[in-house]
Amino acid sequence: MGRTSAARQSLVDSAGELIFERGYAAVGVAEICTRAGVLKGSFYHFFPSKQALTVAAIDDYWARQRECWAELLDDDRTPPLDRLRAVFAANVAAQTTDKRDRGVLRGCLLGNLALELSAHDPVMRVRLDQVFAEQVEMVRATLAAVAAEGTIDPGRATAGTARALLAQLEGMLLFAKVANDPGVLETLWPQALRLLSTVDSD
Amino acid sequence: MGRTSAARQSLVDSAGELIFERGYAAVGVAEICTRAGVLKGSFYHFFPSKQALTVAAIDDYWARQRECWAELLDDDRTPPLDRLRAVFAANVAAQTTDKRDRGVLRGCLLGNLALELSAHDPVMRVRLDQVFAEQVEMVRATLAAVAAEGTIDPGRATAGTARALLAQLEGMLLFAKVANDPGVLETLWPQALRLLSTVDSD
Repeated sequence: MGRTSAARQSLVDSAGELIFERGYAAVGVAEICTRAGVLKGSFYHFFPSKQALTVAAIDDYWARQRECWAELLDDDRTPPLDRLRAVFAANVAAQTTDKRDRGVLRGCLLGNLALELSAHDPVMRVRLDQVFAEQVEMVRATLAAVAAEGTIDPGRATAGTARALLAQLEGMLLFAKVANDPGVLETLWPQALRLLSTVDSD
Repeated sequence: MGRTSAARQSLVDSAGELIFERGYAAVGVAEICTRAGVLKGSFYHFFPSKQALTVAAIDDYWARQRECWAELLDDDRTPPLDRLRAVFAANVAAQTTDKRDRGVLRGCLLGNLALELSAHDPVMRVRLDQVFAEQVEMVRATLAAVAAEGTIDPGRATAGTARALLAQLEGMLLFAKVANDPGVLETLWPQALRLLSTVDSD
């Protein structure tokens, strides 16, 4: 039983690593099995398809990221706006580590797969849409706390603003990845603050 | 000669269409040749590799998009900020057309390939980085015109602000694509205006 679940987790880890490096279509089941040290004949004991394994890898990636975000966003000792800043800083730090350890930025696994697959794989698209909705709700709840302490206009503490912040994060990760330079992300937080401001068009 | 260049353009068009639909790795040379009506044996007369053909497809996509952007951004009869708004509106209109005609949003070919390929294909990454740099410069020049007429602070008319605007566009295209809903883009322009504002952190 322990060996079985270890083999399953090894497949999930290997799929996540390989797909984060090179994308979904570029990686095959045989290569994932080799990296995981699992016989290809055993693969279908654990997963019906590469698609099903990749959904498990997405869930695994998001579970770890969600735990990190929740820890930062639930920290009562820190003002709410600083908690949000910490989430953005954690993302920037992850890219900086990627560049140092691998020579390249991998960006965000969820964003990478969203753009590669959403137009032709409804199963993957819907799962990713659910994950992004969870992210939006976590940020929206934090914005409500920021508004409650009077730092931003309560009218800005919406799901739309939360999505705009996450869109800025994903978009800037794209620019950092294509430049292969985490320094691109230095201006991310000041830009996020602008998205929280109230302007004449409101 | 005419037939030769027609075959080459047909390969570029077919590669662009197929890769925009399904990504780079998911599409093979044989399928591109079939769609283009070009014998696979002739492919290497035109391009040394799928990578080289895809760079040509990127250049072709950007040449058409750049022409559209330039026409909107060089329109002297329109105030500069409205020219920028027109570029954003053109992107939103393209996604709305995609959804109506194909049932799905394809987003931006450049953004899709940037996230799929930048971490492991330096040739593609560098070409895409050059294209995004051209986009940033076009937007920066327009922001300078916006600042010159006094609509924004001259300190905001920078390449960094231009990149933030384009990051917001790419990030919101990601959210629209994963939701398969162009309605997500309704808030794009008000968000862009916030990125042009001057806030306390300046």
